[in-house]
Amino acid sequence: MIKIALMGAGRIGKMHASMIDANPNCRVQYIYDINLEFAKEIAGQTGAKVATSPEDAINSNDVDAIFIASATPTHVEFITLAVKAQKPVFCEKPIDLNIEKVDECRNFIKDKNVPIQIGFNRRFDNSHAKVKVASQNNEIGKLELLIITSRDPAPPGIDYLKAAGGFFRDTTIHDFDLSRFILGNDPIEKISAFGEQLVSEDSKKVGDHDTAMLVMRSKAGVLIHINNSRRAVYGYDQRVEAFGSKGMIISNNQTQSSVERFSEESTFSKDPVQFFFIERYEQAYKTQLEEFVAMINNNTEPKVSFEDGRRALILANAAYESLNSGKVVDINFE
Amino acid sequence: MIKIALMGAGRIGKMHASMIDANPNCRVQYIYDINLEFAKEIAGQTGAKVATSPEDAINSNDVDAIFIASATPTHVEFITLAVKAQKPVFCEKPIDLNIEKVDECRNFIKDKNVPIQIGFNRRFDNSHAKVKVASQNNEIGKLELLIITSRDPAPPGIDYLKAAGGFFRDTTIHDFDLSRFILGNDPIEKISAFGEQLVSEDSKKVGDHDTAMLVMRSKAGVLIHINNSRRAVYGYDQRVEAFGSKGMIISNNQTQSSVERFSEESTFSKDPVQFFFIERYEQAYKTQLEEFVAMINNNTEPKVSFEDGRRALILANAAYESLNSGKVVDINFE
Amino acid sequence: MIKIALMGAGRIGKMHASMIDANPNCRVQYIYDINLEFAKEIAGQTGAKVATSPEDAINSNDVDAIFIASATPTHVEFITLAVKAQKPVFCEKPIDLNIEKVDECRNFIKDKNVPIQIGFNRRFDNSHAKVKVASQNNEIGKLELLIITSRDPAPPGIDYLKAAGGFFRDTTIHDFDLSRFILGNDPIEKISAFGEQLVSEDSKKVGDHDTAMLVMRSKAGVLIHINNSRRAVYGYDQRVEAFGSKGMIISNNQTQSSVERFSEESTFSKDPVQFFFIERYEQAYKTQLEEFVAMINNNTEPKVSFEDGRRALILANAAYESLNSGKVVDINFE
Amino acid sequence: MIKIALMGAGRIGKMHASMIDANPNCRVQYIYDINLEFAKEIAGQTGAKVATSPEDAINSNDVDAIFIASATPTHVEFITLAVKAQKPVFCEKPIDLNIEKVDECRNFIKDKNVPIQIGFNRRFDNSHAKVKVASQNNEIGKLELLIITSRDPAPPGIDYLKAAGGFFRDTTIHDFDLSRFILGNDPIEKISAFGEQLVSEDSKKVGDHDTAMLVMRSKAGVLIHINNSRRAVYGYDQRVEAFGSKGMIISNNQTQSSVERFSEESTFSKDPVQFFFIERYEQAYKTQLEEFVAMINNNTEPKVSFEDGRRALILANAAYESLNSGKVVDINFE
Repeated sequence: MIKIALMGAGRIGKMHASMIDANPNCRVQYIYDINLEFAKEIAGQTGAKVATSPEDAINSNDVDAIFIASATPTHVEFITLAVKAQKPVFCEKPIDLNIEKVDECRNFIKDKNVPIQIGFNRRFDNSHAKVKVASQNNEIGKLELLIITSRDPAPPGIDYLKAAGGFFRDTTIHDFDLSRFILGNDPIEKISAFGEQLVSEDSKKVGDHDTAMLVMRSKAGVLIHINNSRRAVYGYDQRVEAFGSKGMIISNNQTQSSVERFSEESTFSKDPVQFFFIERYEQAYKTQLEEFVAMINNNTEPKVSFEDGRRALILANAAYESLNSGKVVDINFE
Repeated sequence: MIKIALMGAGRIGKMHASMIDANPNCRVQYIYDINLEFAKEIAGQTGAKVATSPEDAINSNDVDAIFIASATPTHVEFITLAVKAQKPVFCEKPIDLNIEKVDECRNFIKDKNVPIQIGFNRRFDNSHAKVKVASQNNEIGKLELLIITSRDPAPPGIDYLKAAGGFFRDTTIHDFDLSRFILGNDPIEKISAFGEQLVSEDSKKVGDHDTAMLVMRSKAGVLIHINNSRRAVYGYDQRVEAFGSKGMIISNNQTQSSVERFSEESTFSKDPVQFFFIERYEQAYKTQLEEFVAMINNNTEPKVSFEDGRRALILANAAYESLNSGKVVDINFE
Repeated sequence: MIKIALMGAGRIGKMHASMIDANPNCRVQYIYDINLEFAKEIAGQTGAKVATSPEDAINSNDVDAIFIASATPTHVEFITLAVKAQKPVFCEKPIDLNIEKVDECRNFIKDKNVPIQIGFNRRFDNSHAKVKVASQNNEIGKLELLIITSRDPAPPGIDYLKAAGGFFRDTTIHDFDLSRFILGNDPIEKISAFGEQLVSEDSKKVGDHDTAMLVMRSKAGVLIHINNSRRAVYGYDQRVEAFGSKGMIISNNQTQSSVERFSEESTFSKDPVQFFFIERYEQAYKTQLEEFVAMINNNTEPKVSFEDGRRALILANAAYESLNSGKVVDINFE
Repeated sequence: MIKIALMGAGRIGKMHASMIDANPNCRVQYIYDINLEFAKEIAGQTGAKVATSPEDAINSNDVDAIFIASATPTHVEFITLAVKAQKPVFCEKPIDLNIEKVDECRNFIKDKNVPIQIGFNRRFDNSHAKVKVASQNNEIGKLELLIITSRDPAPPGIDYLKAAGGFFRDTTIHDFDLSRFILGNDPIEKISAFGEQLVSEDSKKVGDHDTAMLVMRSKAGVLIHINNSRRAVYGYDQRVEAFGSKGMIISNNQTQSSVERFSEESTFSKDPVQFFFIERYEQAYKTQLEEFVAMINNNTEPKVSFEDGRRALILANAAYESLNSGKVVDINFE
């Protein structure tokens, strides 16, 4: 039974608390949040102790591992504390919005031998994972085109937007990681990105984009397309298409039920697709946690590394560079 | 170039005239209809001569084959004339509504060696035909269950209903034939049928059914279900499902376009299915004609024989016997 | 927190134990099984106490409700004990295989005012439930045809078959109940049933069927078709189709993932459908339990009554009568 | 009856000859091809006269309209001859591979008042056309993202590649036009393009691409993605997706039949998609011809203008400029 200190008791922290609670191999031992009321709520539900400071939770002798689901600016601090305490870390994406801070942290953790798993949950979705397998095991032959469609059902509030660090670093970052995951050992080398403000006035107010398209090119010549929107009225649109020399595999959308309706106007009509990430990626979040538990128990490498988190951020930064310069930008992961 | 005498210039006659006209290996040489104006219309379109009597058309030296698309009560008469003239016959379904008349005709044509092809067009539909192939070539293993859904988009007028000879003999007869086609050499032995009057007042007025379900059993133990309705608001519902020991094949509905619509209310919504038989079975009607032409040119057996037409009628009659008696009825094809 | 005595620790008992454990509003207080080892296993997992006799569990002051998941022949006995103890009951289907025993129990429980919920889990499936709603709220107009396809992925062992009470009472009973659920207040009046032995030698040995088709008719003239098989190689085939005067709704199969594969041979290929009932009806089992908890907490009527369990058995018995007599059988629910 | 001079009797010329022949409102009066044998073949099938020179066909008093399906380098010459003769022109895409030559021709035809329809057949596909309608009539709200997937089933031979003028001008040109068609009055302003040689050695030999991805941006901020390949083993992949503020519409692929197969390995498996353009766009080619006939008979504007042909070429040229410079390129249609 792995005893976990959960950092952060907001929406995503609550979801993780429930999942840790339901997993028979771990439990929430400590919960810390800057907002004490939030922390108490989770404590009430899970039987966890409320920590009065991050150190209180992370350094407790009664804690085996650290699960970071707090606000992004705290991630690096908590990772650092956990690594000092030699405790395995799970950290929600992104590591940080600032690549220098990420690189500093990277230098610090080097040679510390503390496993850190980054929260790119989509890698653990059963359907997306089959796209990776088919792209790597020759089922579709040699991979040539990869297309990721990722559209949120509805835009977040302006407060979220202000802190999000920009559409590419907040949202597209998942798709950057998923691209890297499916490509395997073939690194992305070039990017050309477009961004628009079409969905909401809030985007314009904070100077962020809400609609985007980009193309990337891998070393082997695979072409990758990503398109994003902050608002798809039919639900959380999550598709991955891998095309190769011997075929194609698509991870298609999942509807809220399996009914099909037939009327004078239309046929084979299904319900809207799963509304948002907690519904759509429930299985993925559970599997992600199981992998974190297995990593600790079996002393294995994390399935999503700190470096994976860093490289997704580098791609997001390159997307902004392309957008601002009107040029195809070369990627440098060093 | 096969020169055809087309008997009947109504709706279905017109459709056949266009198809004969478009086929490079045959042409409408004579057109006969009891309504001279109808005949003249087709003559104008195809360059055919208008015949003043059935004999005029059928016995003409300038005619190689007879294509019967006239009213059902004339079918046997025209078949008889054609057989006397030793000319190959295509005859729309049903041969006749009266099994005694059909049996008499059967006796007459025996040993006359004139090929007669009956118009069960659905056998020639590419998708339905694949169901037969999969059921016979072991793709789905040994066939165990067969389910045919066949629903018209809208009920016909009362005049049609009065002459139609009853729902089973007019409509279900196609499904009886399709069942026999897919079963191959395995004969149907038992039937239990239900019929209702749910769709229109006209059905009640003429004492006919408009909604039906039945189950049949073949000698090998295959169970067959057919369901029918005279009104499906979403279009002409035509499905065939064959289930076997190693899998299943479904010939599913075909929509009017390949668009899919996504909105707040529904996703993957397609257009209505093809409206009615002329649209849905266009390819099948063309292939049926090609097979008729090939039968004449290659001197082969008809793909749908007079006996096939007779047996479908026997099944329809047995359905009525079951409906009236409340019993499972044994089929006798002798 | 409702404290439950769980009767039965076999496969289905284990599944229920996990779900009771995961539901925050109830817990397994006692577990009883004739096989002590089975009971101990669940006790170990859930923290429940092992009961040494049915009475020990059912009559405990520490128990609020009885959950019966034991072998069918024990159901009536445990229901009787629970009703005597005035404790709400959940009982897996079927109540019993013998209608006389069911009627006796019905007489006993009458006027005892103890709520009893029968385990027809499919009623709680979100997709099937939408078929009922659409059939009753005029979305598809007036219901006219109902088609249920229900095929197990693989046949059970011969020991199961020997005790199962026959295909109609063991398997089709779910579809009888689902038919009644969707029809609402419109009672089923007639049935004509066919059964075959096509799947396994075991069926023949025990004299049971493994393949079936039947047609029923409701008072309002709705025609209902059910088809069953004990073996569908592509997975647990569970479909419900309701057709009415204004449209159609289908609860279609659910595949194991949402990937679609495209190759030289085939396109839009999905994974097999959910393998069996625990996977396919996971949501339904959870909702069923939630409804049981809500029934107790809110003092409401059971969503699936003892009488529902009785009537499904009457339909199964009528199916056998039809099969044996070769006749359409009238249903008598009195 | 419009009497047509058909220029070109190769593969595409033959297809057009059949369609002209089958259309009741026009016929092939003259056929010209540099290869006399090809011309004679079509003459034999259609009853057309073989022209001994382009002028012979185009200037004949017996010819009402010119249909150009010859090799690309002859297009401008034949258009010029036809315009001089004041006869309406249909011309296959592209007008020419050289924009200067196109501009010269544009100057010549200006004020000549001879209608010229360019052969972008996809505009006439019923499903693609519904995407345009939905994008323009507010069905999907305001258009925001447009995604076109266009992949040939198999690469052409090296001789074709040598004359084709490059992947963007030969293949993507259809998608450039389709983008403009769906965007309506909103002009494309920017493009960023990527091209690869992944499919065949022939592409490398002739220095052409066979795999491509690009992103464009319209004046109103619509983002457009196109991806192409010269080889999709599952058939001719032709999809159009339009996403807007109120929904999405997809023109999806069309399979060769409507069967779905279910086995131990996979479910809902369909046949390969239509093999290539003659099968997939049969309806579109027929409608395109009907529109040409209607344009002449009703004296209306062409549905696809010379300027449409020119602008598609400008976009192709801009794609090459972007590819070569590694920059986002501004489009100039003047």
